[in-house]
Amino acid sequence: MQKILILGAGLSSAYLIKYFLDHAAKENWFITVADANLQLAQSKVLQHKSAKAVALDVTRKTELANYIKDADIVVSLLPPALHIEAARECLHLRKNLVTASYITDEMKALHKQALKADVLFLNEIGLDPGIDHLSAMEMIHDIQNKGGVVTTFKSYCGGLVAPEFDNNPWNYKFTWNPRNVVLAGQATAKYLEDGLLKFIPPNRIFTQTEQVIVSGYGKFETYANRDSLSYIEPYGIGSAKTVLRGTLRKMGYCHAWNDLVRLGLTDDSYHVPNSAGLTYRELLCSFLSGANNKNLEVQLARFLDISVSGKTFKKIKWLGLFEPNLIGLTEVSPAQILQHLLQQKWMLQKEELDMIVMKHEIGYQWNAKNFKSHSSLVVMGESQKFTAMAKTVGLPMAIATKLILKGKIKSRGVQMPLAKEFYVPILKELSRFGIKFEYRV
Amino acid sequence: MQKILILGAGLSSAYLIKYFLDHAAKENWFITVADANLQLAQSKVLQHKSAKAVALDVTRKTELANYIKDADIVVSLLPPALHIEAARECLHLRKNLVTASYITDEMKALHKQALKADVLFLNEIGLDPGIDHLSAMEMIHDIQNKGGVVTTFKSYCGGLVAPEFDNNPWNYKFTWNPRNVVLAGQATAKYLEDGLLKFIPPNRIFTQTEQVIVSGYGKFETYANRDSLSYIEPYGIGSAKTVLRGTLRKMGYCHAWNDLVRLGLTDDSYHVPNSAGLTYRELLCSFLSGANNKNLEVQLARFLDISVSGKTFKKIKWLGLFEPNLIGLTEVSPAQILQHLLQQKWMLQKEELDMIVMKHEIGYQWNAKNFKSHSSLVVMGESQKFTAMAKTVGLPMAIATKLILKGKIKSRGVQMPLAKEFYVPILKELSRFGIKFEYRV
Repeated sequence: MQKILILGAGLSSAYLIKYFLDHAAKENWFITVADANLQLAQSKVLQHKSAKAVALDVTRKTELANYIKDADIVVSLLPPALHIEAARECLHLRKNLVTASYITDEMKALHKQALKADVLFLNEIGLDPGIDHLSAMEMIHDIQNKGGVVTTFKSYCGGLVAPEFDNNPWNYKFTWNPRNVVLAGQATAKYLEDGLLKFIPPNRIFTQTEQVIVSGYGKFETYANRDSLSYIEPYGIGSAKTVLRGTLRKMGYCHAWNDLVRLGLTDDSYHVPNSAGLTYRELLCSFLSGANNKNLEVQLARFLDISVSGKTFKKIKWLGLFEPNLIGLTEVSPAQILQHLLQQKWMLQKEELDMIVMKHEIGYQWNAKNFKSHSSLVVMGESQKFTAMAKTVGLPMAIATKLILKGKIKSRGVQMPLAKEFYVPILKELSRFGIKFEYRV
Repeated sequence: MQKILILGAGLSSAYLIKYFLDHAAKENWFITVADANLQLAQSKVLQHKSAKAVALDVTRKTELANYIKDADIVVSLLPPALHIEAARECLHLRKNLVTASYITDEMKALHKQALKADVLFLNEIGLDPGIDHLSAMEMIHDIQNKGGVVTTFKSYCGGLVAPEFDNNPWNYKFTWNPRNVVLAGQATAKYLEDGLLKFIPPNRIFTQTEQVIVSGYGKFETYANRDSLSYIEPYGIGSAKTVLRGTLRKMGYCHAWNDLVRLGLTDDSYHVPNSAGLTYRELLCSFLSGANNKNLEVQLARFLDISVSGKTFKKIKWLGLFEPNLIGLTEVSPAQILQHLLQQKWMLQKEELDMIVMKHEIGYQWNAKNFKSHSSLVVMGESQKFTAMAKTVGLPMAIATKLILKGKIKSRGVQMPLAKEFYVPILKELSRFGIKFEYRV
């Protein structure tokens, strides 16, 4: 019997745990789900005979080590900053580790020790990062194997609301960590364009958008992610003149969000004085010199150079920023106040479903001709618990874990899933769950 | 004999030390100038018989304590972050301390202990903060003493180049710490306008300027300082509906500087990859999508929505940002590269002089009528060593030190110079040195 330890039973764990439970009998697995909140862990495990839920505070190193010692592999769904604690114990106890998070410098630093210990710390095996790596590498290797040379690489992904529940002026609802959405674009974006290094400072990330069409789902717009340059070397696309990764939103979102940025509503650097006694209307007013309770609408439209009957104004108004309702929070930044408001406006309701959209565009030269390869993926949520996000984050992790347990993965050290041994079997199994790319050249 | 310990013999020390040396015989003082760089300290003391220069690394606590123990008062010209080390020793040894820096939370926390030890830690007694406090409090108290009620308070200050050496398109040269100039406006500004709290996020601090006229010196423009709200309570102007502190520049500076901000050239959050091998032209190009070596000028003008024959374009061009010259620096941020370039362009030359401009505008009601009181100060540098900046920062510190040594100051604890016992004698003596406000109602 092989033992799987899952650290964290939060948002993205539903599909992952279901996969392990469904395969437990056949694969002869025993699953331990550990969370600081025992009830949460129990709610995922239920009465399954090959699984148990336990209470675990991962900052208690001895307890953590005891659980890891007893496991064959560790799957960490912890907040990104806590993976490193699990990784250090895994190194010491020579256990494999799987996470869906970006490789941090701290994690990277364990590479040589992990190689020496003959263990694999597989990271970035969720959706984005995760499925994007798998499908990009499949496309890139296909092109290169037939003698093509990659000239452009663009990759976009977004977590959105499913079309039938897309019923607000922003065409957006939260399907993932709201704080990350509110603080998006606050670091300089770096990418490559026509062979030239390009930077976009935070003050204009949402102004420099591109349009992307996904067949059957219409037009989307994209804004640039933090660092596209760092993918050139691991993807083996040094030949590419343009490399850009971005986030997908419905049309019009970025323009309106940029106006919130310009106003100062996404500022997370200070606490608004006396915020509890302020109304949203007063807060909005405080970002506009010359604006007062009476002329706020006109002053806002003038400052943003938009019409009071236009789409952007409608989006801002719909959020309730003009309403004289009390904020009622103390010691909070403008970004935290905005998040609080958005969480009332942009929450997926019980019966509503989410949607994942991913798109790659890879240009290449082959036989002295230029080609462009497109691949796109759309995944719909199945229920409030089995969301598209939980499915696309959890299943790649689960499948990778199974492959490692079966000894089918030869990679060791700190890795992301770029090699063929990852993308071939994982994409194949994902397609059986309806996670299937459409390809077009 | 009374002993004065001066910590730091850098930029702003020339006038301060000269004042102490000139008064040493009459006042029966002995002055010790301590700096990590012994030669620098010696160059300020020369062969004066009532003074000595010593080498001191203030992070060596025992040495620092020995010098403080032997002194009657300590004047700290250290970098702001190091004052607290001196303050802790002064508290322990019950010595008075004088600095020209803003009171930090750490310094503030020593207030009760300083009161208990019956010592004065006088901070913010330079130019800005310093002379601004003295003259503002004199005006405010005058208004309040005759029964007037302050309704608006605006205060501006700038270190500029003297008009006869004002010969570049920016009408600006460095007269103070260049890094602070490059990183100015990167925190949200907070102020009060018509009774309403107002915030300006970093992305538009240089767009929201006001015009200020200083009689005899023409028009200036101003941008808002970080936190004007924090002055309402200490200044006793809770009655004011508008409170704003700002920095003065010559007309046109802020618009052009804002364009450098929009481009991303003041970004200090990341290192530019391969910066040593880049030219300034290539760096500029990297901030504009679609720009290349050939179309850069046109793309820049289009992006900034300015004319290639206009004043702002001229300012940017004059800096050398279009030149194919190698940057030649490694591991530097855009802000550090910009600073490096500006230090070649905006340096005061040997024979050139600086200028300080300060202006207060205080509105008040008196006998049911509205009045506006203006005061302005212009100080010219005397030489490369005796700059207007060194004079206006150093003399208030020196005079305050003298008053404390003579027992004429009753304040104790952590203070800024707001009380009458500071502004009356210090402004009076400053006027004898030509630091004299012009008043107008």
